[in-house]
Amino acid sequence: MKPGIDVEVCEVGLRDGLQIIPDFFPTELKKAWIRKEAAAGVPEIEVCSFVPPKVSGQFVDSEEIVPVALACEGLTVSALVPNLRGAEKGFALGVHKLNFVISVSETHNQANVRCSREESLERFRLIAELRDSSEENRKVELAVGLSTALGCTMEGRVDPGDVVWLAEEVVKMGASRVAISDTVGYANPQLVHEVFALVRKHLGDDVLITSHFHDTRGLGLANVTAALEEGCRYFDASLAGLGGCPFAPGATGNIVMDDLVFMLESMGMKTGVDLEALLEVREIVQQGLPKETLYGGVAQAGLPKGYAPASMVAVAAE
Amino acid sequence: MKPGIDVEVCEVGLRDGLQIIPDFFPTELKKAWIRKEAAAGVPEIEVCSFVPPKVSGQFVDSEEIVPVALACEGLTVSALVPNLRGAEKGFALGVHKLNFVISVSETHNQANVRCSREESLERFRLIAELRDSSEENRKVELAVGLSTALGCTMEGRVDPGDVVWLAEEVVKMGASRVAISDTVGYANPQLVHEVFALVRKHLGDDVLITSHFHDTRGLGLANVTAALEEGCRYFDASLAGLGGCPFAPGATGNIVMDDLVFMLESMGMKTGVDLEALLEVREIVQQGLPKETLYGGVAQAGLPKGYAPASMVAVAAE
Repeated sequence: MKPGIDVEVCEVGLRDGLQIIPDFFPTELKKAWIRKEAAAGVPEIEVCSFVPPKVSGQFVDSEEIVPVALACEGLTVSALVPNLRGAEKGFALGVHKLNFVISVSETHNQANVRCSREESLERFRLIAELRDSSEENRKVELAVGLSTALGCTMEGRVDPGDVVWLAEEVVKMGASRVAISDTVGYANPQLVHEVFALVRKHLGDDVLITSHFHDTRGLGLANVTAALEEGCRYFDASLAGLGGCPFAPGATGNIVMDDLVFMLESMGMKTGVDLEALLEVREIVQQGLPKETLYGGVAQAGLPKGYAPASMVAVAAE
Repeated sequence: MKPGIDVEVCEVGLRDGLQIIPDFFPTELKKAWIRKEAAAGVPEIEVCSFVPPKVSGQFVDSEEIVPVALACEGLTVSALVPNLRGAEKGFALGVHKLNFVISVSETHNQANVRCSREESLERFRLIAELRDSSEENRKVELAVGLSTALGCTMEGRVDPGDVVWLAEEVVKMGASRVAISDTVGYANPQLVHEVFALVRKHLGDDVLITSHFHDTRGLGLANVTAALEEGCRYFDASLAGLGGCPFAPGATGNIVMDDLVFMLESMGMKTGVDLEALLEVREIVQQGLPKETLYGGVAQAGLPKGYAPASMVAVAAE
């Protein structure tokens, strides 16, 4: 946890949000987005995915984007890596944190990365070996996102025991963080309590747990409250709730970063984020995605009269 | 609490939803809405507001609507009453439950009903006297909605002590239920914990507490989880999230009934509502409001594969 804050939020809109959008988001606007959101105080941004251009054309500019992000003071720069080749690129570019992904649902893993979960574990082992092979690489944090950890469109219910199994395996291999991902918006607060408590019990307190929730069925922030109660202090989100399917208006994607920050700060939890500055970043997103609907209650309704965010109260008291 | 359920939801779309909509919602469609939503298992519907036609033209058909609702087996029929005259009408029509409203914010009360909170208390006292004046009237439950209990667009922060003061006064006068209302969507889970715990501490367990939350800033269901943890088991909501300002697309109103039922049932709490049947009622709402955007994650994204609602699991086990 960075000093002076209680909860660390991570912007994933540039990766999880943009990856499903067919139109290329202009490189200059990506840079402006990163710079402005980092300046608003967001402590971590997942800036791209190191996938081959044939998988997604959205990230062909990653070599230009990463250095811009690394130049933002205090910002943790992370990227998604699907395999060893992606990780090599991440290490070469000096990204601070690499996020590998395994689906807890076997069927979903096969559909997503065309291999079994055991093969995915083996791929991660190779990445961890590469990380441990040099002093420079060892500075890089390895995290594993456990997709479909709370339900799967293909398998339905997912066994919490499988979440624990995969989490324990990747931690043994060298991951210092695990993201519990509700990839398809199936979770509910009760299930979040259950799975997070179970994972925490098995991994102990040294392994960081990130919540990666989608708001597909409107329960995103309710699930955040459950994760908070289970001690989770790391949350992925995307500005304006990017990540929704462009063919299903209203089916939002990741939880809305702006609303998340509003909720946390209202609850007295310091995020270090200046919400008004954050809301202004939405203009850049809209400029880059003129056809997309942006989500967010706070952006629509405005800040409450007398809004006293925890971060600002803390500053005022200093 | 009705038998066999854990949480009681109340549909307020016909009142809170329609009251701000300028176009008249056809009487026949209101009847169809009530019948179909009652048949889906929703235990209570606030069917109208007994206000003069000059205040709102939306409820001029209340004498036709109430008998239709009363004919629905097992349905609790409630109505909002702004004053003694409205209450007289409610008693005459045989409504089961009358909801009076006082704003906890003095400024908001003045703006809303043009009198002080003390005068509002006096108005409620007259209604309670009328209720106690006959055996027939004594069958009617009296509830008081404490508007702006969690924040006010005019005053900002609202003193939780004032919520307790008004709650205690109306209970002394004869209210058996108090609704804590986040009229303008200012609440957060931490504040909900604080205010609900305080009210419960002062009122004890015999007075029923209803949560009346709006989803204006996206925190509606997160606030529900906090209220659940404080022991609240009564929740107002509106189908498709009606109640938003028609001039601010995206600024939803009441929490979405369909998503609320989905969340509760997914968490193992029986609502008695058949969610698939409930979702079908949206067609009637859309027919009556062709220009309005309907909200709801579940309606948009569909039910999860393998969805096993608590109510259905219970039925299957019998």
